[in-house]
Parts: sequence; C-alpha cells; structure tokens
Amino acid sequence: MSQLKLVFLFVLLSNTALAADAVSPEMFTINNTWLLVATFLVFIMHLGFACLETGLTRSKNTVNIIFKNTAIVAIGLLTYALCGFNLMYPGGEFSYFAFSGFGIASPEGAAGLIEYAGGAYTYYTDFLFQAMFAATAATIVSGAVAERVKVAPFLIFSTLYVGLVYPIVGSWKWGGGWLDQAGFYDFAGSTLVHSVGGWAALSGAIVLGPRLGKYVQGRIRPILGHNMPLATIGVFLLWMGWYGFNGGSVLSADPAAVSLVFVTTTLGAAAGLMTAMLSSWAILKKPDLSMVLNGALAGLVGITAGADTVSVNSSLIIGGVAGVLAVLAVIFFDKIKIDDPVGAISVHLVCGVWGTLAVGLFSTNPEHQFMVQLLGVGAYGLTCFVVSLVLFLGLKFTTGVRVDHEDEYRGLDLSEHGSAAYPEFQLTSHS
Amino acid sequence: MSQLKLVFLFVLLSNTALAADAVSPEMFTINNTWLLVATFLVFIMHLGFACLETGLTRSKNTVNIIFKNTAIVAIGLLTYALCGFNLMYPGGEFSYFAFSGFGIASPEGAAGLIEYAGGAYTYYTDFLFQAMFAATAATIVSGAVAERVKVAPFLIFSTLYVGLVYPIVGSWKWGGGWLDQAGFYDFAGSTLVHSVGGWAALSGAIVLGPRLGKYVQGRIRPILGHNMPLATIGVFLLWMGWYGFNGGSVLSADPAAVSLVFVTTTLGAAAGLMTAMLSSWAILKKPDLSMVLNGALAGLVGITAGADTVSVNSSLIIGGVAGVLAVLAVIFFDKIKIDDPVGAISVHLVCGVWGTLAVGLFSTNPEHQFMVQLLGVGAYGLTCFVVSLVLFLGLKFTTGVRVDHEDEYRGLDLSEHGSAAYPEFQLTSHS
Amino acid sequence: MSQLKLVFLFVLLSNTALAADAVSPEMFTINNTWLLVATFLVFIMHLGFACLETGLTRSKNTVNIIFKNTAIVAIGLLTYALCGFNLMYPGGEFSYFAFSGFGIASPEGAAGLIEYAGGAYTYYTDFLFQAMFAATAATIVSGAVAERVKVAPFLIFSTLYVGLVYPIVGSWKWGGGWLDQAGFYDFAGSTLVHSVGGWAALSGAIVLGPRLGKYVQGRIRPILGHNMPLATIGVFLLWMGWYGFNGGSVLSADPAAVSLVFVTTTLGAAAGLMTAMLSSWAILKKPDLSMVLNGALAGLVGITAGADTVSVNSSLIIGGVAGVLAVLAVIFFDKIKIDDPVGAISVHLVCGVWGTLAVGLFSTNPEHQFMVQLLGVGAYGLTCFVVSLVLFLGLKFTTGVRVDHEDEYRGLDLSEHGSAAYPEFQLTSHS
Repeated sequence: MSQLKLVFLFVLLSNTALAADAVSPEMFTINNTWLLVATFLVFIMHLGFACLETGLTRSKNTVNIIFKNTAIVAIGLLTYALCGFNLMYPGGEFSYFAFSGFGIASPEGAAGLIEYAGGAYTYYTDFLFQAMFAATAATIVSGAVAERVKVAPFLIFSTLYVGLVYPIVGSWKWGGGWLDQAGFYDFAGSTLVHSVGGWAALSGAIVLGPRLGKYVQGRIRPILGHNMPLATIGVFLLWMGWYGFNGGSVLSADPAAVSLVFVTTTLGAAAGLMTAMLSSWAILKKPDLSMVLNGALAGLVGITAGADTVSVNSSLIIGGVAGVLAVLAVIFFDKIKIDDPVGAISVHLVCGVWGTLAVGLFSTNPEHQFMVQLLGVGAYGLTCFVVSLVLFLGLKFTTGVRVDHEDEYRGLDLSEHGSAAYPEFQLTSHS
Repeated sequence: MSQLKLVFLFVLLSNTALAADAVSPEMFTINNTWLLVATFLVFIMHLGFACLETGLTRSKNTVNIIFKNTAIVAIGLLTYALCGFNLMYPGGEFSYFAFSGFGIASPEGAAGLIEYAGGAYTYYTDFLFQAMFAATAATIVSGAVAERVKVAPFLIFSTLYVGLVYPIVGSWKWGGGWLDQAGFYDFAGSTLVHSVGGWAALSGAIVLGPRLGKYVQGRIRPILGHNMPLATIGVFLLWMGWYGFNGGSVLSADPAAVSLVFVTTTLGAAAGLMTAMLSSWAILKKPDLSMVLNGALAGLVGITAGADTVSVNSSLIIGGVAGVLAVLAVIFFDKIKIDDPVGAISVHLVCGVWGTLAVGLFSTNPEHQFMVQLLGVGAYGLTCFVVSLVLFLGLKFTTGVRVDHEDEYRGLDLSEHGSAAYPEFQLTSHS
Repeated sequence: MSQLKLVFLFVLLSNTALAADAVSPEMFTINNTWLLVATFLVFIMHLGFACLETGLTRSKNTVNIIFKNTAIVAIGLLTYALCGFNLMYPGGEFSYFAFSGFGIASPEGAAGLIEYAGGAYTYYTDFLFQAMFAATAATIVSGAVAERVKVAPFLIFSTLYVGLVYPIVGSWKWGGGWLDQAGFYDFAGSTLVHSVGGWAALSGAIVLGPRLGKYVQGRIRPILGHNMPLATIGVFLLWMGWYGFNGGSVLSADPAAVSLVFVTTTLGAAAGLMTAMLSSWAILKKPDLSMVLNGALAGLVGITAGADTVSVNSSLIIGGVAGVLAVLAVIFFDKIKIDDPVGAISVHLVCGVWGTLAVGLFSTNPEHQFMVQLLGVGAYGLTCFVVSLVLFLGLKFTTGVRVDHEDEYRGLDLSEHGSAAYPEFQLTSHS
C-alpha cells in the first residue's frame, strides 16, 4: 500500500518489541498466525451476538433476528471488500475495490507482499481481521431495533452503515486521520466499533419507538427473553471472541503486549460481571441473570479502548465501573421509554463512552489526555447519531422501518419470513 | 515414515515458502502449532454438524441424531488410528495399525520425529489432523438418512465407510496415488471429503426412501426443523471450523498461503450466503433462513477444492455460484422425491462437485485442467456411489436399515433410545 | 518472581526441547502465543460446564445453574488474582495480591518480564492460564449440588474453595511442594483439578442429600435432563477446551510434546466414549446418549494426569477403562443414594483417581511410581473431602445450604431468581 499506511503501522508497532528491520521470517509467521487466530475469534462473536439477541427476545421473532444477524455477516464482509477497507485505510492509490491494489491476487502475488505492515502480517490478514470487525458495528444495532424492525430496510441501513459510515469515521483514528493526529486513543474500538454501533442503536430505537405493550399507561411491562441458555451461550462466545478482538488489536503476537491485553480484558470482564451482579442484587433484591450477563459484556466493552495501556489494577476499576453503569443505564433507558430489548445501548454505547474516557484517566501513557478522549467521544457521537438518525428517518419515510401492529403481535417470523423457530413446541398465550 | 511419503510431502510444501533444509526449530514449532489449532477447529465441526442436523429435523429424533453424530467421532478417530491413516498414506512399511511404525510412542520417540514432513509438523500432528477430517465424511451421510435409519446398521456403515472406503479413495490423491499423478487437484477436500460423504448420502437416501408423510399424493409436504437457533449455531461452528479445515490444509503456517486461504474461504462463504439469500427470496418470495444457512455452507464446500489456488475475485464467483446451486438442488431433489432432511446432498455433493470443477476453470495454476478435474469427480462419484449403495443394500437385506413405520411415527428417540431430548416441553400434535 | 519458582519451571521445561539460554525471541513468542490460545480454550470449558449441567437437569433450575456457573468464573478469576496465584506458586516474596510483585503493571513493566519462566511465557500468561484452571474446580461441584443448593451459600463455598483450598493443595505439586518432591506426578490435573473438585462434589452431595423424589420407597426414580442438545454442546465444548487444558499444560509449544498430548487426549476421549457406549448398551439394553457423553468426559479426565507421559496405546486403555468406570460409578452412586444430577462425581472424582493411578501403571517415565501416585490420591482425597465437608456443614448450620421443599418443587429459578429460563414454553406437569 502507501507510504502513509506503512508509517501509521510503524507507529502502532512501536508499542511492541518489534522493529520492521529485525523481523525474521519466523517472527513474521507467528505474528500472522496469531492475527488469523484472532480473526476466527472475532468471527465467532457474530454467533455470540445472534445467540444473545435471540435468547433475550421472544420466540416469535427468533427466525427474524437470526436472519438479520446472519445476513449482516455477509453484508459486512462483502462491503468491506468492495469499498470499506480502502475507505478506512486510504493509501496513496485510492480504489473502491480493496483488492485492486495489487491485481487479482494469486498465491505468488500474496507471497510478494510479506513486507506489508513491517513484517507483522500479510495484506490478506489485515483485510480479513478488519473486515470481521466491521460487521460487528451493524450487529450491535440489530439488538436495539429487534422485534419490530422490517427486515429489508434494516438490511439497507446495515449495508450503508457498515459499508460507508463505519469505515469513514473509522479512518479518523485507525486510518491515521485527524483524531489520530490529535492524539485520540482507542486501542480496539470502545468508540470506533462499540459506540459507533451504539449511537446507531440509539437512533434506531428512537425512530422505531418501543415495542407494543412495553410501556402501558405509564408502567414498564418487562418483556422476557425466551431462552436464557441461548443468551448465555452468546455471552460466553462473545467473551471468548474478545480475546481475538482485543488480543488481535495488538497487531502482532508480541508476548508482553498480548498477554497484558488478555489479562486486562479478562479482569475487566470479571469485574464487570461481579459489580453488575452485586449492584443489581442490591437494587432488584434478587440475583438477576441477564444483568450478570450484560455486566460481563459491559466490562469487556469498557476495557477495550485501553486494554493495552492501562494497568491490571486499573482494568479492575474500569470493568467494575462499567458493570454498574450498565445496570443503571438499563434502568434509565427504560425510565425514559427508550426500548432496547437486549440492553445494547447500555452495554455498547454507555460503556463504550466510559471506556474511551477511562483511557484519559487511567492510561500509563502520558500522551493520552482526557480532553482529547472527550473530543473523540463527542465527534463520533455527533456524527454517528446524526447520520444514523438521518438514515433511519429516510427509510421511515420511504420504505417504512416498522412492521404494522398486527404483524408485530403475530411476530416477525410469521409475517416477514413465513416460518417459525420452534414449530413443534407449544407456547403460552403471552408470548 | 517412508521415503515415498516424505517425497509426497515435499511436493505439497512446494507451494509454500518453506524448504525442509531451511526450517528452523522456531518455524517448525509455529507450523506445528498452527496445525494443532486447525485440528481443534476441525474437531468442533462435529458439533456444528450435530447442531445443524438436529435443528433442521424433528425433536422426536434429536437424541438419535446426536447419538449417531457423537458416536461417529469416536468411530472415525479410532478406525483412523487402527487402519485409516496407513491406508490413506501408504508408506514403504505398510501396517494396519497407524502407530506401529515407530513402536509404542513415548515423548522421547516423538521428539525423534521432528524431521518428519520436512519440519512442518510431527507425525502425531499429521495423524490427528487427518483423523479429524475422516469422521466428517461419515457425518455428512448422517444428515441425509436422518429420522428413519436404524442406529446399529448406520454405525456399521459408518465404521466401514470411514475406516476403509474414505482412506482408500483418499489415497488416490492425497496419498500420492493415480489421480495425484494424473494432475487432479483438490486442496482441502471438496471431493475427497464432501463429495465422498455426499455420494454415500445420496445412496443412503435412495435405499431408505423418503420419510413417511414427506411426499403425499404427489405433493411435497415440508417437514420443518424443530430448532432454528440450534441449526444456526451449527452453521457458524462449521464456518469457524472451516478455517482449520482449509487453513490447516496448507500444511504449514506459511503467511501468504494461509491468509489467502482465509480470505477465499471467508468470501466464498459470504458470497454463497448472499446469492442463496437473494435467489431463494426471488423464488420463494420470502427471506428463508434455512436457505441462507445452507448457502453459507454451499460457498464453503465450493471454495474448498481451490481455496489456495484461485484469486480472491474468483472465490466470490465460486461461492456465489455454489449458493445458487444449493438452492436449486434442494428444490430439485425434492422434485424427484429424494428426501434429504438437511440438504446434505445439495450442499456437500452438488457443491463439492462444483468446487472441484471450478478449480479447472479458475485456478491460477495452469497445471490444473478441467478435464482432469472432471475425471476425478467421475472416479470418486462412480466408486463412492456404487460402494456405498452396495453397503447400504447389503445392510438392508441383512440387519435392515430402516425403522418400521410405527417407530418412525413415534420417533427414533423413543423407539431406539428409550429417551427424549426435551422431556419437559409440550409438543404440538404434528411433530 | 523468586529463584525457587524459576527452578521449578526449569524442571517442568526439562521435558521439552527448550533450554532457557537458547530461547530466541521467536521461540518465546510462539510459546507464549500457544499458551494464550490454550487459555481461551480453557475459558470456553466454563460454557461447556454450564451447558452440560443445564442440559442434564430440569428447566425449572436452569437460570439458577447458569447463574452459579457464570458467577463462579468471575469469582475464580478475581480470587486467583487476589491471592490464589501467589498461594499456589509461593515465591520468595510472598504477597496476597498477585500483581503486587512487580508494582502496578504497565506495558513497559510486562516487557521487562520476558525472561520469566525461562522464556516460555510471560508472567501475565502464567497467571491467566492458571486462573482459568482454578475456576473449573468449583464448577465441578456445581453439577453435583444442582437443583437444591441455595445460591448465596454456594457462592460463599466456591469463593473459599477456589480462592484458598484449591491453590493451597495445588501448591503441594505444581507449586513445588512436598508431593512434588516425593515424585508425585499429575500432568494437567486429573487430581489437582478434577479430583479436588470431585471430592467437594461428593461432600456437597452428601451434606445436601438427594433431590426430592429421586429415591422414593427404596426405588430410584430417574430425573431426566430437559435439553439434550444443550448437554451435547457442553460436552463438545469441554472436549475442545481440553486441548488447551492438556495441550497448554506442556507450558510451551514444543511440537513433540504438544502433539503427543493432543493425540493421547483425543484417543482417550474417543476410547472412553466407545467403551461407555458399549458397556451401557450391554447393561441398559439401549444406546444411552447421556452415558456416551459422560464416557467422553471420563476418558478426558482419565488421560489428563499422564497425557504427556504415556504411550498412544496406553491412552486408549486409560480412556477405555475410564469410560466403563464412569458408567459403573453412575449406577453405583445411585445405588447408595448419593444423588449427583449430572454424574460429576463419577466423571471427575472416580476417573480423576483412576487417571492419577494410571500414571503409576502406564507412564513411560520410570520415576513415576504407583505407590507415590496412591499417596497423592490419598492426600488430596483426605484433605479435600474433609475440608469441603467442614465448609458445607459450617454453611448448613449458619446460612443453611438447601432450599426448602416448597421452593425445590417450584424450582430454584422462581424461588431464588424470580425468573424463568423459558417463560414462553409450555411445560409438562412432571417437570
């Protein structure tokens, strides 16, 4: 690619023990292999999202949710190949098709690219690891608009958001853009992935309005998830995938950096789980499983911005605060009648903002400053909220975004897909 | 092992940047570690198959399907140790027991074998990676014969097919046999694994006949799967496992080759998902989840034969065509009343054949020729279809292969296993 | 850390081809990367345990079981950071907080520690890999006390057992303590993890007594699991995780040692599965899925103590014996009215003892002696059984450990958590 990109990558790599000149074929191979392992870990997060969202919603919308989350994976990967990768990491020779830069790739072509990225990984690995990230942003939105969004407009929104918005705002930092030059730091995407998804989740939930029957005569009527083991599978897969999400963001297999990131990520999750458990137990007077599950995710989202640059003790604080924040935010959004079926806004937006600001408070690197972090949070928030609001409103007044009331009562599985997730099981009337 | 085998492995390795003389202990270690990672990824594909097949069938046969798929893993691994490995890779010193070649292995014995395979991996790693592949062929059959096959005869069939047929026909190519010498190419097993399983699935479905109530008075009565989240878990686990299936088939951690394979595999799957979604939406007039799931698998099966030797753009075409083929094949086999409950024949046989032929059309290596690919497809097809037909017919006229009608109505869980998968849940009468 | 610890690690590493002086940065990086991969594999075992225990019990206790197993992960990780790591591996400078040894860790601090462990892995990796192990011991208990234990006392027990008992008795062997010096061998924890958990499972099941309705008027009334696909997902995830559990216990990526461990682990599991299938089929006159699933786990627990030091053929025998033992033990504990809902005592305690003794019978290392193995089994058994009995009895007479009869009939989900796992599904009356 371009000189610019190589320079940018050198900066990233300067955190590690690697220097491009010194990278042997062996070190190149292990770095690249670790990045590919991280890639399949991030991939399995998509199954995690699908299971979590499905488990925390009603069975009559299960096929619909899985359909959306499965289609998004393909949309995210294909748009990232088509234009996202080059939009996010613009080099000297701009191209709308990611792979046109070096002709139609053949194994020989690829072998010639081993010097890419200072010997840390190949061009292919770079593309694929980043492509797996891209789709997660759209998936976050899916949870907040679940059980009432029309499938076709949602796929149109996702295509635009993941294909254009995500890479363009992502280039501000990871592409070496203006926020990167301003000193903004976001290691693995508390803001660039989770908040970017979270802001769109917020505007989607606002434009759609709450599900029928959620807020009745001023009272909040809980709508229970239909399958808690499925939600649990989702959270554990997300946690496992996060080792690739954060661990891979080191962009090499550097032992000190990757193992620190594993420890801060793990303890952030454990602390979030624990404080969410204790705070929800105190508030709700019972041990609530969904709060515990969301607490772990809150800790993970929170630690993501600074996982490589905060101390182990700080990771406990960051994750612990995130766990409490998620519990309070879930209660808060219900109070102001923003209906988020799976708590996506609380987990990904609130804790994404917290984690990004926490870098300004806890980073061991004195160059990371709170006010710059705040600037970044504001810039992403303003842009992503406004753009996603415009997109959702545009769809609302053209294709429509919400199914009609009768279809919502019947469930989107029947009305949109003509099928059922569990056709043999007898359901109770309230579902 | 033998000289012959080492020579064969050198040929394989010539695709990569490795040369046996130049392999340092470090490179050997990373190569071997990647192969072991690939091994556990292929292992988890067995859970993927179990979930997919269970989810797409009725709950009254769930214990039966899981039992079969779990038993097959053990049967596949144990028969491969007993004879499969040596049948598939016959060296100078033929032996029916894989490990007899170097006595009862001890850690010291293993350490002495690091020069095996030109320093790419140990003898143990080679065995285990291949053994994990072996069981997948039999598992493919399981889906096509589901909901009506007797458990004991199926286990006998699987033992013979995976223990003898799979390794013997596999040796034609991967063991350096006549098709290898003829120039036939199958990188990771579109033919050697998926079609080999698919042909047996076809003959099994023919011998057994359709499930009761599937084709009534000339009409096709769809029999719905009972658990779509479970089927989805299956597909995502299979996709993740495919990174080991294809990525490990590079037989080293060579960065250029493995990362190219990751990209072609991923985009093949994404393209298959997308074209299956769009084509089934156009044909069926609704977004159908099971078609989308099978489309991803179709893309993965299709790209498997040439994942290391086609360009990234070609992988989009190969996967995209596979997605449409799977949709059309599912409709076609229903038309001709071959009842395949999970679409295994459409996905594994049809797309396995397509992927193998596609090497002849899209390979960047001019030595890969369409007519030779066709020869290989024909040779495997004829052999595997006839042998599996004979095996199934032999079982039909001795032990019987199909449960009686009353047992099929009650479900195989009660009739064959005396238990239920979900004993607490109330089921509707149609199940 | 301390001199003592480094010496101890040198001893461990002497099995491998590594020598600390000779470890290049590349070898250090691949070793550390493999350990981190093993770490996320052990992590996913916690999801495996949760799925297995949930699937094999009744749906009215599902939220409770998941809640316990999820909370234990956080408790295990946090207590291990707080004190467990230093209790288990006491160095020269004893500290109750694991990370105080080198100040508040920063990336720079970590980079300075690459010489830790002779260049095999970083301090962070060591901590995290061990921390993931710690929580498994408590999780094993969870299965045996399921469906009747109060949630808060169980969490107190788990905190004490995993935070204090597990690391203290663990130090006897892995911390270089008296059993290590006596020549006791336990490669990856048949005794140190599985039996340590298993003894507490036994005392928990004794103190709690059987579930209501299990043993009525001298007859054993089977209480069926509610979700066999979930149990199957659990077993396959545990099996996959075991590649990290055993493969990571090599404590390096040494190709010969890790690949041998993969093969013995795999064939141990396959043999256990097969013998459990055949023996239970012979005894129960039907192919029983839960026995097959437990047979695979039995083989895995059995091979864990000697996976690196027995031959491949021996692994078949060890796993095969374990599979039969698990079947017989499940029947035996039911006979003597010790109610273990998921067979945890049979699998983890009985096969853990067997695997540890099997090292004395089958090890290729002549220093491993049966009588010393027996001594170790006895020392762990006496200590863990007595201590866990005292803890459970102490809780029984203070907080109480068992829910009252009415709550047990209603299910712990409603009585302890005020929620349901599957609120939409209609259940039969017997559940």
